[in-house]
Amino acid sequence: MASTLLTNIRIASMTENGNPFGELDASSLRMADGKITELGNSLKPKAADTVVDGKGAWCLPGFVDCHTHLVYGGSRANEFSQRLAGVSYETISQQGGGIKSTVRATRDASESQLFETAMRRGRRLVEEGVTTMEIKSGYGLDLQNECRMLDIAQRVADALGIHVQRTFLGAHALPPDSSLSADEYIDLVCEEMLPFVTKNNLADAVDVFCESVGFTLAQTERVFKVAKDCGLKIKAHVEQLSDSKGALLAARYGAVSVDHVEYLAPGDVPALAKAGTVAVLLPGAFYYLKEKQLPPVQALRDHNVPLAVSTDINPGTSPIASLLTCANMSSVLFGLTTEEALKGITVNAAKALSLFNKGTIAKGADADLCLWQISSPDELIYEINGFRPYAKWIGGKLHGKS
Amino acid sequence: MASTLLTNIRIASMTENGNPFGELDASSLRMADGKITELGNSLKPKAADTVVDGKGAWCLPGFVDCHTHLVYGGSRANEFSQRLAGVSYETISQQGGGIKSTVRATRDASESQLFETAMRRGRRLVEEGVTTMEIKSGYGLDLQNECRMLDIAQRVADALGIHVQRTFLGAHALPPDSSLSADEYIDLVCEEMLPFVTKNNLADAVDVFCESVGFTLAQTERVFKVAKDCGLKIKAHVEQLSDSKGALLAARYGAVSVDHVEYLAPGDVPALAKAGTVAVLLPGAFYYLKEKQLPPVQALRDHNVPLAVSTDINPGTSPIASLLTCANMSSVLFGLTTEEALKGITVNAAKALSLFNKGTIAKGADADLCLWQISSPDELIYEINGFRPYAKWIGGKLHGKS
Ligand SMILES: [Zn+2]
Ligand SMILES: [Zn+2]
Repeated sequence: MASTLLTNIRIASMTENGNPFGELDASSLRMADGKITELGNSLKPKAADTVVDGKGAWCLPGFVDCHTHLVYGGSRANEFSQRLAGVSYETISQQGGGIKSTVRATRDASESQLFETAMRRGRRLVEEGVTTMEIKSGYGLDLQNECRMLDIAQRVADALGIHVQRTFLGAHALPPDSSLSADEYIDLVCEEMLPFVTKNNLADAVDVFCESVGFTLAQTERVFKVAKDCGLKIKAHVEQLSDSKGALLAARYGAVSVDHVEYLAPGDVPALAKAGTVAVLLPGAFYYLKEKQLPPVQALRDHNVPLAVSTDINPGTSPIASLLTCANMSSVLFGLTTEEALKGITVNAAKALSLFNKGTIAKGADADLCLWQISSPDELIYEINGFRPYAKWIGGKLHGKS
Repeated sequence: MASTLLTNIRIASMTENGNPFGELDASSLRMADGKITELGNSLKPKAADTVVDGKGAWCLPGFVDCHTHLVYGGSRANEFSQRLAGVSYETISQQGGGIKSTVRATRDASESQLFETAMRRGRRLVEEGVTTMEIKSGYGLDLQNECRMLDIAQRVADALGIHVQRTFLGAHALPPDSSLSADEYIDLVCEEMLPFVTKNNLADAVDVFCESVGFTLAQTERVFKVAKDCGLKIKAHVEQLSDSKGALLAARYGAVSVDHVEYLAPGDVPALAKAGTVAVLLPGAFYYLKEKQLPPVQALRDHNVPLAVSTDINPGTSPIASLLTCANMSSVLFGLTTEEALKGITVNAAKALSLFNKGTIAKGADADLCLWQISSPDELIYEINGFRPYAKWIGGKLHGKS
């Protein structure tokens, strides 16, 4: 069986072993059949090995972007320009702006338009070292268009040669130009969409935008209940704009992650810890919205809630195709240490997707790896747009030059 | 004579003509001998033309990064990590951190180390569309090492195939491990370094770090006087951390730009307008330093002071190799409109270097051009890391794929 031996590397395992970045006492690594099979200081080449001399490079797990809205139609750059020129949110909304405009543009876009624009953004993420990505639906808001987004998400992942996890976010907003009440739309999500998505294996997880301007706790809980019955993982957009107690509800349903959490009350943190729920920080949205409320990082640390960091790439509040820039923002804006930021885009991001074989370097883990010509991993967090991996393996296979 | 004809394009001239982004009523453009020679709607191919069908792409001037410290040794990522982990500035400084550590690392680095690391950062800038760059000295702080930085700046520009303007920043900080007083060091700058740099044509401009933690107004003025005698353009780091009145002094000496200016008093703005001085905004440093004081953007607008935007890429306060990200920050953090931000990295950035043939698209201007597959130029400012030019000409010549 073909295998690859990397020699002369420094390995940041991103696991807890007392060393910064979980550095291993090992300078070589063998991968075969998609997995890391051996780690050590004196691994000798075998006949089946392709040997790669790392020349002192650092080897890190491939990055995991655990919260993206990568697939969408249109652009909201014009709204951004209008707001900077002094036009109010209200006027823009009355003109049909905001998420409504993205839903319309997504429904109106052709398959190939949606595919090509998602590929453009996806390439940017991948060339910085992302090897696994979550992609949500949520701009279709009817059965056909939600399913179309999930289909395209898979096509994009295949074309990029990366691993994708798909999340059904039908409960993202009320569909525009619809006469349904929020409760009636949730009926549709629970009775029609979720069963169809499950039956056709279109998603691994379910997400809800639980917020004063999104769906209520009661509506959110209805979706969680059906998701649980369907055997889907639960994720939730919570506490982004207000303390709505969505995190507590999500924890009660064993959510794998709660995302945003700027307004999470420190008192609600123990429930997340108990449920094993990951807190996903999304500093890109914080930056674009000029938010002032910081997430309760110290309380999350105190209770050992894993902290992940993601781009939240989306057309309205976080149009940012760089996971490393978001990791930098998590340090500059939220005060994460460089090690916390790197864990946030590796091991903890993988946990936020229940992918326990990804995001770390260990025997038996998936062989998703990048080599970096850096003196120390903290350089990746410190500089913005400074580095690209100079070699990359996904599932043990050398990945096309980025 | 060989020429190139671009057809089927939309042209953002970035000049003031009443249209957003200075869009021209012209869908084609001819370049020859390094210049733009014709603009029009019905340019017909000539025998000497290489014809390129732009397929509806937008054509913009190549970007100008008018304030960089691209050449330096070492990394200060460890200091960033330490500060995030709670170590104080004082402790880090006592450990020999800060600019002192960069000066030591720059002096200790080999030519090829300095060249290669500057190339790594320069490539990132160029692949986003930068075709002209200013590069400062300032981490040598003795004659030999300042000249070495300026030499390497030219080598980097040549290797990247871009235009560079070099600025002598001997008066950046007091050299570490030196017994000289600040006044004695300024003697050295004025009497030894500046004459040598001028005689050997190593720089086009002179810059001074005029600040409470840098050089005083009197010391700054001594440097300006000699610079003027030497026929060098004047630039200055002013009002970054305090209102030290460096901008007024710079205006008095006809400076081409004053840079940072967060603490610039609105009352000092008319003097800049009168002197024709450009205000260069550096939001990357603002972001990394978590500065709260905003530059007086409205006062600068009111007096028609041209606003430029630059990366200030440097190892300590702005390790950011993306001019478009800094332009985005100038909108998100400083409130510039998308058009102001784009002018800030084109026409006004060129003005900040007195390069009046660059940064615009007009008959007779230098043929430094990029083609972008976008619906509108504001998309370049709105998205972070979203776009790359798909074709690029510098001095009329097709530039290697980025
Ligand atoms: Zn989201
Ligand atoms: Zn500077």
